[in-house]
Amino acid sequence: MLNGKTTLIAHIGYPTESFRAPMIYNPWFEKRGIDAMVVPIGVTAEDYPVLLRQIFRFTNLRGALITMPHKVVTTSLADEVSITARIAGAANALLKREDGTLLADQFDGVGFARGVARKGFRIKGSRILIVGAGGVGCPIAASLAVAGAASISLFNRNAAKAETLSHRLRQYYPDMEIRLASNDPAGYDMVVNATSLGMSEDDPLPFDPERLSPATFVGEVVMKKEITPILEAAIARGCPYQIGADMLFEMIPAYLEFFGFGTATPEELRSVAKIAY
Amino acid sequence: MLNGKTTLIAHIGYPTESFRAPMIYNPWFEKRGIDAMVVPIGVTAEDYPVLLRQIFRFTNLRGALITMPHKVVTTSLADEVSITARIAGAANALLKREDGTLLADQFDGVGFARGVARKGFRIKGSRILIVGAGGVGCPIAASLAVAGAASISLFNRNAAKAETLSHRLRQYYPDMEIRLASNDPAGYDMVVNATSLGMSEDDPLPFDPERLSPATFVGEVVMKKEITPILEAAIARGCPYQIGADMLFEMIPAYLEFFGFGTATPEELRSVAKIAY
Repeated sequence: MLNGKTTLIAHIGYPTESFRAPMIYNPWFEKRGIDAMVVPIGVTAEDYPVLLRQIFRFTNLRGALITMPHKVVTTSLADEVSITARIAGAANALLKREDGTLLADQFDGVGFARGVARKGFRIKGSRILIVGAGGVGCPIAASLAVAGAASISLFNRNAAKAETLSHRLRQYYPDMEIRLASNDPAGYDMVVNATSLGMSEDDPLPFDPERLSPATFVGEVVMKKEITPILEAAIARGCPYQIGADMLFEMIPAYLEFFGFGTATPEELRSVAKIAY
Repeated sequence: MLNGKTTLIAHIGYPTESFRAPMIYNPWFEKRGIDAMVVPIGVTAEDYPVLLRQIFRFTNLRGALITMPHKVVTTSLADEVSITARIAGAANALLKREDGTLLADQFDGVGFARGVARKGFRIKGSRILIVGAGGVGCPIAASLAVAGAASISLFNRNAAKAETLSHRLRQYYPDMEIRLASNDPAGYDMVVNATSLGMSEDDPLPFDPERLSPATFVGEVVMKKEITPILEAAIARGCPYQIGADMLFEMIPAYLEFFGFGTATPEELRSVAKIAY
């Protein structure tokens, strides 16, 4: 029950109507007897640079979940930015530290990486193709690099975005193989759909599943439905895979740890979440 | 359940630990199926003038409950200030209007006035002594003036405060009798203890109950316990009375109406409140 001793985590974005985090975190806090609450706060892009610092002046606030459209600018507003967030070029979490300074981090890709690792995929030393170098592809690339991938290949319809991401990866991981590639999924240990293709019924497939080896792990970020068309094709070929929603539920424990609330399993979070996936 | 469509009411003060409003409003919102939530926000006095306007930029926020130590300065930060708040010299409620401007109002005294009216006391035309011209006495004087008292007498240990309040009352109610008086309760229709005397076991009484007529209504603001020593003495003399907590539960419907959430009865609020009084 929200009260004056409750620790607040702001969930900052605009518009707020589609926010899902409060319905996952808050039931979990309640179940665990943790006096904390995720509170949606609607802030426009125009207001954000000024308001962010002000929100962190709240004496009962410990951190923030940052969502659209503020993730990119957050990296230039924090006092310290994690390597993952710097490579991703975007942050989705802010922590107010003891001395009042703000630490920005990025867990979108961490959720993806934790999920595939729990499914038995060994990221360290693997060769990975990421299709899509936008808001989801960048953090996934960052987290896979941090987790020790041997080679990351990038494809994006707008090649400039893939190129920018490759520069940021090289800056922090000069010894890793980083390639600008086509969306041909042949020859990789893992292929990730990090585009929004699959959201709409008539979307083309993000890559050609006929070219997939059955040994290639296929990762999906679209969570409009559990088995998207590209996953359906991958499953038909016998590929191991990860659905889009897994990324979300694997990401939340990383946030909880970052904010100092201990941790949870994705299963526990799914069981308390007050939303359908 | 808090979500991205929830209308926020900020409860702004510092420190926040003793806030009670969330445990009254929020269960009521839930009971009525109103998607709104009172959220405690800790803001120091130093930060408040800057942060207040920023908080009202939140797109999902409709208003604020203002508490210690911000009530006085709020009257100089709003775009429009009600007469009650101007006389009280303090505001405890802010509403963001359609055009984005902030309206400040004051309901501490309104709760007191509503409560005594519901107990059958006719404020209009009455002669009232208010003992204490501080943070509670000022809004009570304002609300009793607005409700049509014929005469308000003021006593404060520090006489300057009573004098300042008398000036503000005269400014808006030039035809009402306003007197600086002693704390002798004889000869009034109502006497109000608006001091904190009664909070501690060894406090002296705020006025001499031996001088009370059994017909005089005695109002109390201290809510540390239900029957304070001065109420006990007044009851022994047969005086009608009002306890401190009544002011709180009578005030909340006024806030709800101000924010546009309809209204509630004090009984309904008491029945859902997650706190003991």
